[in-house]
Amino acid sequence: MSARAQREFFAVRTLDEALTGFRPSRRTGAERIGLEEALGRVPAEVVVAPHALPGFARATVDGFAVRAADTYGSSEGLPSYLELAGEARMGRPPSVEVRPGTAVAIATGAPLPPGADAVLMVEHTQSAAPELVEVLRPVAPGDGMVRGDEDAAPGAELAAPGRPLRAQDLGMLAAAGVTEVSVRARPRVTIVSTGDELVPAATPELEIGQVRDSTAVALAALVREAGGEPSHAGIVPDDRDALAATLRGALDESDVLLVSAGSSVGARDETAAAIASLGEPGIWCHGLAFRPGKPTLLAECGGVPVIGLPGNPRSALVVFRVLGVPIVRLVGGCTLPPPEPTALARLGRDVPSAAGRADVVQVRVRDGVATPLFGSSSLLSILTGADGYLVVAEAATGLPEGSEVEVTLYR
Amino acid sequence: MSARAQREFFAVRTLDEALTGFRPSRRTGAERIGLEEALGRVPAEVVVAPHALPGFARATVDGFAVRAADTYGSSEGLPSYLELAGEARMGRPPSVEVRPGTAVAIATGAPLPPGADAVLMVEHTQSAAPELVEVLRPVAPGDGMVRGDEDAAPGAELAAPGRPLRAQDLGMLAAAGVTEVSVRARPRVTIVSTGDELVPAATPELEIGQVRDSTAVALAALVREAGGEPSHAGIVPDDRDALAATLRGALDESDVLLVSAGSSVGARDETAAAIASLGEPGIWCHGLAFRPGKPTLLAECGGVPVIGLPGNPRSALVVFRVLGVPIVRLVGGCTLPPPEPTALARLGRDVPSAAGRADVVQVRVRDGVATPLFGSSSLLSILTGADGYLVVAEAATGLPEGSEVEVTLYR
Repeated sequence: MSARAQREFFAVRTLDEALTGFRPSRRTGAERIGLEEALGRVPAEVVVAPHALPGFARATVDGFAVRAADTYGSSEGLPSYLELAGEARMGRPPSVEVRPGTAVAIATGAPLPPGADAVLMVEHTQSAAPELVEVLRPVAPGDGMVRGDEDAAPGAELAAPGRPLRAQDLGMLAAAGVTEVSVRARPRVTIVSTGDELVPAATPELEIGQVRDSTAVALAALVREAGGEPSHAGIVPDDRDALAATLRGALDESDVLLVSAGSSVGARDETAAAIASLGEPGIWCHGLAFRPGKPTLLAECGGVPVIGLPGNPRSALVVFRVLGVPIVRLVGGCTLPPPEPTALARLGRDVPSAAGRADVVQVRVRDGVATPLFGSSSLLSILTGADGYLVVAEAATGLPEGSEVEVTLYR
Repeated sequence: MSARAQREFFAVRTLDEALTGFRPSRRTGAERIGLEEALGRVPAEVVVAPHALPGFARATVDGFAVRAADTYGSSEGLPSYLELAGEARMGRPPSVEVRPGTAVAIATGAPLPPGADAVLMVEHTQSAAPELVEVLRPVAPGDGMVRGDEDAAPGAELAAPGRPLRAQDLGMLAAAGVTEVSVRARPRVTIVSTGDELVPAATPELEIGQVRDSTAVALAALVREAGGEPSHAGIVPDDRDALAATLRGALDESDVLLVSAGSSVGARDETAAAIASLGEPGIWCHGLAFRPGKPTLLAECGGVPVIGLPGNPRSALVVFRVLGVPIVRLVGGCTLPPPEPTALARLGRDVPSAAGRADVVQVRVRDGVATPLFGSSSLLSILTGADGYLVVAEAATGLPEGSEVEVTLYR
């Protein structure tokens, strides 16, 4: 079977089919890291509170620890009086008890003395005499304090697999004394660039026909955003055997393999053949009802998801953002990805689209108007000029000017 | 003047006043870094294209480079015929010219030969004879190709100060051969924790009254999100001289200084006095019409912005997110911060708020309903249970159940 015949053999899929149907089973292993490195990392297991938090009843206002019942009926007109029995010290176990008819001075954050069930705000008292607190308002049990298990009961879930750790999650783990956490390793994503026209980005002078490899640099950045660890296997010419050899070499050290394929039909066929030679189960789809990104290839070879990206830089970046980022996240155990920034806007002009094909349209957003940016999918400037993109769904045959659209914004 | 009198001396500001009025002039210096490190970094200067991009006219389809005029009038019924004069090789300067009446085979991405002004898609041709191209449709000049300066004209702006570099910006810089970029250094943000009750997060067993320092860990994560480089100066007891000494020691090595103040009124006064002793112009505001975060302090001492955060972990994180993150960004030269994810939702219950005070309310968002999470500002669990927050503006006296609200989502 020729490369071209082989390519035609695989069904073209829709974007939705690809997003829901191509679910590689590979997951990275667990590693233990310190909290200071854990922002955005994905827990590998549930972390529970080893003890109640904060661990003791605490004042949440400055005032007096009391028995609430002793304050019932107090008012400015008819205050009640409590004997000042001492002071609760910050950061120390209480050294004094609140007995009926007494109060203990307490500052925000200090532990409640035994016997107290509320804290009276200092603003609702007067100092009647050095050792006497004049109570101007009643308090209910639990006022002005938190319980010892109010932030977390023992065994409460502090972190769970699937969702990246946020700043407040790290704070909660620190509060519980958990300073190391088991997380999924960052997926190692190897980027292979192919194309006879490509030269390294550092090439100072170009010959006519040569193009610097911009896609690898931009893909590496997107891999980082997705929580992966990118590496670049270099530029391979449009030659099936050379490409197959490079891919085979990268397979063992990759959790995801990205091939930025040559842009011509011939080069794409070579890429497909090289990927097909890597191992079972092989190519899942070759061709996506998606613009820009029709020549996208999805495969799983020897347990490693392989994504063949279109050769045009803009197409490659759009496809990787829409389809590749979720795969990198999945492999890294992230099933609840962080929300993307979005904006509602009115469309500044008509957007054509063929039914049966999803279109990703780059837009500039100003004052609530989304202006589509059109141009060849070889142009990176369409992406650098855009504030975000919108997706015209497969069923739609375009969107009229003035439609309300949801734009996913670039960060 | 006593510490308390001094505190009262400074006006309480609104959140808007603080956001617009407190604009420290400090900026970090520039440093040169490689593109692979530059994601999210803020350019220190404009970067322009050193030459046109892609630098030569390129085919954007597979087909034949032609003179468009030679194809005019062609149709399936009445094709025209062009002599096949050779092939444009990928990545090489053209070795053949397109003379009138001839065509040159070309693949997507290859340079247009001299004389050609369009590329005819292979789908719109037939091979009439080995050396003859049968043209079934006309093309206009510019069809099937991009100009040599279509991605960027020489001198076009590829990156500018103020906005963090995105993946596509890095791609564009790479395409232009710019592999190093001058960016603002990450602001060094020193975090000082104060409070007699605080012990390091790594403390395995707590005495009654002791609390692990969770705020420093969570603040460090937020500093990283804001593009800063956090460091922790440790835990200082609620003692003015000890705190002043620690702050003075940190000042020289900080671009922003954060003090997570003790939570009691007395501890806050000590913090204010210690900050006031650091240098001119000193305290800008002490007190914010903002919940949670009333005891917030903003100062500029010896050219370093100093933020005194409330002692309660939740208040400290909310204030830093709303007020501190923009300051860290500003010091790092980021004047066009990336968009935050948001969601429109209906409020699941009434939210009370006092007029003249902005309220940040933590919410859980499910199925378009934002459910407010209430509780003491000492509880971190309110933040870990939240998907985001909404701000009740100063003028509002609360929001009724069912109101449409915009929720800023945590990432």
